[in-house]
Amino acid sequence: MILKSLDEILEKASAIQTKRIVVAAAEEKHVLKAVLNASMKNIVSPVLVGNSNKIKQLASEIQLDLDNNIIIDEPSPEKSARTAVEIIKNNDAEVLMKGLVSTSVLLKAVVDHKHGLLKGNLLSHVALCQLPNYHKIIAITDAAMNINPNFEEKIQILKNAVNLLINLGYNIPKVAVIAPVETENPKIESTVHAAKLKMMHLKGEINNCIVDGPLALDNIVSKEAAQIKGIKSEVAGDADLIIAPDLNSGNILYKSIIFFGTGKVAAIITGASVPIVLTSRADSEESRLYSIALAVSI
Amino acid sequence: MILKSLDEILEKASAIQTKRIVVAAAEEKHVLKAVLNASMKNIVSPVLVGNSNKIKQLASEIQLDLDNNIIIDEPSPEKSARTAVEIIKNNDAEVLMKGLVSTSVLLKAVVDHKHGLLKGNLLSHVALCQLPNYHKIIAITDAAMNINPNFEEKIQILKNAVNLLINLGYNIPKVAVIAPVETENPKIESTVHAAKLKMMHLKGEINNCIVDGPLALDNIVSKEAAQIKGIKSEVAGDADLIIAPDLNSGNILYKSIIFFGTGKVAAIITGASVPIVLTSRADSEESRLYSIALAVSI
Repeated sequence: MILKSLDEILEKASAIQTKRIVVAAAEEKHVLKAVLNASMKNIVSPVLVGNSNKIKQLASEIQLDLDNNIIIDEPSPEKSARTAVEIIKNNDAEVLMKGLVSTSVLLKAVVDHKHGLLKGNLLSHVALCQLPNYHKIIAITDAAMNINPNFEEKIQILKNAVNLLINLGYNIPKVAVIAPVETENPKIESTVHAAKLKMMHLKGEINNCIVDGPLALDNIVSKEAAQIKGIKSEVAGDADLIIAPDLNSGNILYKSIIFFGTGKVAAIITGASVPIVLTSRADSEESRLYSIALAVSI
Repeated sequence: MILKSLDEILEKASAIQTKRIVVAAAEEKHVLKAVLNASMKNIVSPVLVGNSNKIKQLASEIQLDLDNNIIIDEPSPEKSARTAVEIIKNNDAEVLMKGLVSTSVLLKAVVDHKHGLLKGNLLSHVALCQLPNYHKIIAITDAAMNINPNFEEKIQILKNAVNLLINLGYNIPKVAVIAPVETENPKIESTVHAAKLKMMHLKGEINNCIVDGPLALDNIVSKEAAQIKGIKSEVAGDADLIIAPDLNSGNILYKSIIFFGTGKVAAIITGASVPIVLTSRADSEESRLYSIALAVSI
């Protein structure tokens, strides 16, 4: 199975049993709208932690019905984050979403050793992108979390994203480790890491996927470009997932896909015991909904 | 003046006096075709250094007329590179182009202290990109030369690209120093460098342009995104030039513009005493012509 469009994720999320989503500091208009919309589509059943007066006021502004029973009043964003995490710990919700609380405050609650949601894994950002100039969904990691991952962290970033795709129903996702060139060059760390990841795959240390790299973007997404360069690879021109060298390049690739490639995206944080939805103010309404649907589909 | 399309560069190159281009190891079909096409359009007057038999054979294969007087027989690629550089030194050509010789061999001849073409400056790659989802030409540097530039090198990369735009006729190009976020964070070097470059500009140490950064790609290319984030900047949403943190991110941005953004590009190496055209096998015919036109227009 591979995905051709993000609507397939929406369909999947609508078809399965409704999952509970807990929002930390839910008093943010766009987040509230997205969650209530997803709730109307039976994708999620929300629990809204935050400033209850503001939440009610916003719901009335955006003209969406709100069951007061799903609100837990907690005006402090810090406490709201801790309460949301606690609700997950108590198995009273299966997805965590960020509202009007800073990412660092929310993640502090998530990574707390005693009360948090870490599985011992590193947290990483995975984005699924649908764009006119590629023949299927392409996933990008990591565009938002890990600044300068070392090799061990890259292994985990790769595994987090492959797990996500497998959970979505992929069989053997094709993973391209991106670099500026195709040959390993000790001066270009991204090529060294890419070659090592490929080697780990060949040795059976990275499974459930095909890994190739170093590959430059042209050869990752264009069979024709790869052919011209004489590159023979199952991944070339047909990648399902791109592993970026670092935050600079991952973020640029992700935003370039949205703004230059007119792409649509669904993105979540993986690696905790539940998926975490962190949308930003600049995200489109559609993208927020896709991200929630992705979180409930895995 | 700003450029809206690469055709304006072609027009400019056709309008001015024809410049002489010397090709090192000209026995490469695509390069030969591009140069002879540019010659027919009176954009360049070529000098072809290389294996003369092969050059003649290729010209006949691609059915283009060839004046034998413009060929200098030199079958060794290394010597061909040195001869081409010498021709520039003797003021017998104003543009250098790479044929069937590796980039490293060609650049070795260029950076040779005694016989080369360095002006004391660092060499850097500048690409001018035209794409449907941006309202004017956007330049990217450095997508191909400098692997991990330090701060001093970034200043020079910025200046090389600004000089190129000024030479093309820009008045005050708007320069965005890209990073994953807008706030300076000591853990993210790209944000620190961006803030320092902006400060140098404000102090008058970088002139003939407006510099802003750190700016993420969304806010560099979309006024709407910048507005949503409350960013006030003359550069936001209207950049003429993007300075990438390193080769990884510059190369990804450049290739993403071409493959996801369906962009057209003109690219050269700047910083030597003459522009250097380095096209690659995967470049389109159009892009080769634009690159030659760019080299003669500055």
